Amino acid sequence: MNHLLLGGGGFIGLRLASKLSRVSKRVVIVDRNREYFEKNRSNTPSKIEFFKMDLNGANFPSELATKLDSVVDPWVVWLLAANSDIQKSSRDARVDYQDTLGTTISAMELCATIPVSQIVFASSSAVYGDQPEIRLTEDFEIRNPVSNYGTMKLASEQVLWHHFTIKNIKTTIYRFPNVIGWPCTHGVIFDFIRKLKKDNSRLEVLGNGFQTKPYIHADDLADIMINLLATAKMYDVFNIGPLDTGITVREIAENVVLKVSPEAKIIYEETLVGWPGDVQSYSFDVSKMLSAIPNFKLTSKEALAKTIEEL
Amino acid sequence: MNHLLLGGGGFIGLRLASKLSRVSKRVVIVDRNREYFEKNRSNTPSKIEFFKMDLNGANFPSELATKLDSVVDPWVVWLLAANSDIQKSSRDARVDYQDTLGTTISAMELCATIPVSQIVFASSSAVYGDQPEIRLTEDFEIRNPVSNYGTMKLASEQVLWHHFTIKNIKTTIYRFPNVIGWPCTHGVIFDFIRKLKKDNSRLEVLGNGFQTKPYIHADDLADIMINLLATAKMYDVFNIGPLDTGITVREIAENVVLKVSPEAKIIYEETLVGWPGDVQSYSFDVSKMLSAIPNFKLTSKEALAKTIEEL
Repeated sequence: MNHLLLGGGGFIGLRLASKLSRVSKRVVIVDRNREYFEKNRSNTPSKIEFFKMDLNGANFPSELATKLDSVVDPWVVWLLAANSDIQKSSRDARVDYQDTLGTTISAMELCATIPVSQIVFASSSAVYGDQPEIRLTEDFEIRNPVSNYGTMKLASEQVLWHHFTIKNIKTTIYRFPNVIGWPCTHGVIFDFIRKLKKDNSRLEVLGNGFQTKPYIHADDLADIMINLLATAKMYDVFNIGPLDTGITVREIAENVVLKVSPEAKIIYEETLVGWPGDVQSYSFDVSKMLSAIPNFKLTSKEALAKTIEEL
Repeated sequence: MNHLLLGGGGFIGLRLASKLSRVSKRVVIVDRNREYFEKNRSNTPSKIEFFKMDLNGANFPSELATKLDSVVDPWVVWLLAANSDIQKSSRDARVDYQDTLGTTISAMELCATIPVSQIVFASSSAVYGDQPEIRLTEDFEIRNPVSNYGTMKLASEQVLWHHFTIKNIKTTIYRFPNVIGWPCTHGVIFDFIRKLKKDNSRLEVLGNGFQTKPYIHADDLADIMINLLATAKMYDVFNIGPLDTGITVREIAENVVLKVSPEAKIIYEETLVGWPGDVQSYSFDVSKMLSAIPNFKLTSKEALAKTIEEL
């Protein structure tokens, strides 16, 4: 099988590509940023090809199709491209419009120009929005994203569904929880490390720190994504996450400080959430994932511990 | 009050602008197409200003802000821009991505550069999707659009909601049923007339003709939009539609043929819907609209009769 990772040059994509390269003919990453790939080159199998290319670029599908040469075997297309700066996109809707939804539209255009056997889309728990009292299974129909990011992930799922009904290409949607691990490129731990590098005597946390969310380690996430692949029906959606309902931002802050700068004072805000579009807590039902791959029983605490070790 | 109609150069916008011009200081239409405006100029109050401009253009907000001069009074911004070719956009998701959602993003950017007292968004019954058994009130939370058009209207509503929570500008969402009237620029009657002009001996209908949908006349719609404006809360959503659950495409086809080309043979397909993304039937609850403006008790039959007269 050939694997094409659109927006795969980052934190999750590179781990995924490394794992896929062990079991497949060609693994191609397409990303507009090459920095993370270059920085982590020493840990990356040399077999992985990298094309620097913007999915929102004017000639994207045709240019990439040419670069891929004439391929007989079809591609599994992993759609990992998305904005990752949720706070910025809360103020500027265009960011997610282009980088989260626009890249999905471009990916579908690509699928009309190259042979594709399966599309895998990295969606998000953010499509559910703020519904803490409810057991959020994949088929729970009320989806009220509270961020532009969640809105554009949901719209991406919907256009992919519509695309599937017309093209009948196997399509698999993974809804991610918070993903951690090191070296990462964004998210809570990235922010903490960045702040502590600037001033190692204090860590200012966004919100009161009692925000509680489920976390998974990028390495485990990549394994799960690959393992679920074969079990998926023609169009299928999976929540991916740990067994628990989450750990607090306080627990993360304390562990990071202990590891990186034990003397630093942690300072919390009084607000319940860290930014507009942040949620106080969420958790979703992963029983569908667990019945497909029962060995992946992970906890948020383990994900945190694994990340702290990597720091 | 000043009214700014973005994408207001079409069928609904021009009627709305004409009505608004009677009661307001300035009425400005912004549209990338000038043809419809020019064609209907004789029936259009001379007071209405028209700026030819693409909402997706690179310099849109700043260019328009300059053209509007320095205004003391704030604008009511009517966001009417959207793709209207649902069938085309079913095959090409980029159409609605740009013309339906992209224009909403641009409009919000405009609202950061000029004084705005209220945003009015022309949404659609398409945000609900295919849920024929359910009483679709405005607060019914399951929304499963089955077309790219509906997906991008729903995403627009969600980014407008997020925008509201941050900027606190009064925002009113109108969810439209099918809109008819003459001269129109798209939709079922437009298609029928176009086909009969090409060949007046036959009318090929998309689908089996038993699709049943509620219709409103553009003239009544414009009155309703203006009348609901004052009753709206800071963020409010209204379904707009007739009292009934709709008329069939057969009834429309027969009436159009009778008026335009009585000898024409009407030919139906065997499919339940006319195209991917079409729905067999829908109707939504308009009791909120009726309790706000009890005088607007309209029926789909009346809307059809009024349109047939105009032909």
